[in-house]
Amino acid sequence: MVELKENERIDDLQLNGLRLIQNPRSFCFGVDAVLLSDFADVKKGHKVLDIGTGTGIIPVLLSGKTKAGSIVGLEIQAEMAEMASRSIRLNGLEDRVSIVNGDIKEYRRYFGKACFDVVVSNPPYTNKGCGLVNPHDNKAISRHEILCTLEDVVGAAADLLAPGGQLAMVHRPERLADIICCMRDCGVEPKYLRMVHPRPFKKPTMILIKGSRGGNPELKVMDPLYVYNEDGTYSEEINRIYGR
Amino acid sequence: MVELKENERIDDLQLNGLRLIQNPRSFCFGVDAVLLSDFADVKKGHKVLDIGTGTGIIPVLLSGKTKAGSIVGLEIQAEMAEMASRSIRLNGLEDRVSIVNGDIKEYRRYFGKACFDVVVSNPPYTNKGCGLVNPHDNKAISRHEILCTLEDVVGAAADLLAPGGQLAMVHRPERLADIICCMRDCGVEPKYLRMVHPRPFKKPTMILIKGSRGGNPELKVMDPLYVYNEDGTYSEEINRIYGR
Repeated sequence: MVELKENERIDDLQLNGLRLIQNPRSFCFGVDAVLLSDFADVKKGHKVLDIGTGTGIIPVLLSGKTKAGSIVGLEIQAEMAEMASRSIRLNGLEDRVSIVNGDIKEYRRYFGKACFDVVVSNPPYTNKGCGLVNPHDNKAISRHEILCTLEDVVGAAADLLAPGGQLAMVHRPERLADIICCMRDCGVEPKYLRMVHPRPFKKPTMILIKGSRGGNPELKVMDPLYVYNEDGTYSEEINRIYGR
Repeated sequence: MVELKENERIDDLQLNGLRLIQNPRSFCFGVDAVLLSDFADVKKGHKVLDIGTGTGIIPVLLSGKTKAGSIVGLEIQAEMAEMASRSIRLNGLEDRVSIVNGDIKEYRRYFGKACFDVVVSNPPYTNKGCGLVNPHDNKAISRHEILCTLEDVVGAAADLLAPGGQLAMVHRPERLADIICCMRDCGVEPKYLRMVHPRPFKKPTMILIKGSRGGNPELKVMDPLYVYNEDGTYSEEINRIYGR
């Protein structure tokens, strides 16, 4: 039996009966986490790390969608990490999924070098120092680079990935140049880029990017992903990703 | 009267009566040059440089589409530069457009520092050393980085642009990471990116990118440009760009 705290609720993820505890007053997962879970190339037996796991949504989805051997979610906010751990127990995933409450800037304290096959991250999108934010606010920490920057995430991933290992991220288009330069500088070569558009003819509002540790330069820009069709219904691909 | 050489022909550009001399046995301009001419932000009185002008298509189109004060096309191949010069005379554009036969690697011999408002380039797409090519072949020189690399083009542009000046390029998606890193390394910050797709739902086959010398980081990814509609007719935007 897993206990719920004030304002928390249990959401059914509509995937193999998986469920997730969320607190709508702090931060609820969005389409970005769902798309990233579908985008990462997680194979049988892979060791996977999710940097900034929040509610644990990505580890929980990956446990249902892939044959990953083990999945670790790292989360700096103690309350969030504790809630994510309860979601893992709620789903009986303790043998494959673990939540670590810690700071990615101190990744060496928790993990050995080159010990992951895939690192995923849905990091804070907004550049450090952009906009007024309350640094103690859960939502702000999840959205702004208060406690961790792009460089922290990519730098840690570069060190934690096995050679040829994959870093998969979801981010905002306006950070694309920062992401590409940061990945290359860290030795994680950008290999696949997918733009996510609200609908055809509209500019993208999200990007999905995969890099390979030590890979050769050559970026494959993939088919665009449209969330809605022109008539306002969900696209076929979104329905597939959401298992509908 | 402008003379034509063997195999050359005069094409009507369907824009203000402008015409262009081309030799179908060497290299004919494509949709990329037309899109780039539309994409660059050339304002009244601007001084513009086209690096690797080939037939001179971009300077000729820009002379008709913009109020640029002066446009220079730089071309390393003597025969091509001579043919482009005849196209300039054919259109009576000698007062605004000039063709320089020279090597971008020696740009300091022809131009002063920071003397252009806009630099455009439709450079060779294929990475140096990729694929077997005949280094004396006109087409190969236009398509492969035999005589000039991405770094040559961006490095020269960075030096030749006034502060805040714009570099606009058309290129292939697989070079996007190279282009973004090279621009940032040279101090030309990527500001606008537009993907060109053959049609909706297909991956892009060209990219249009604009950078600003000394600009702040923040890339705007624009609406996608589709060449054809789903029914196979030209898109409205392509018809607008081609003036149809």
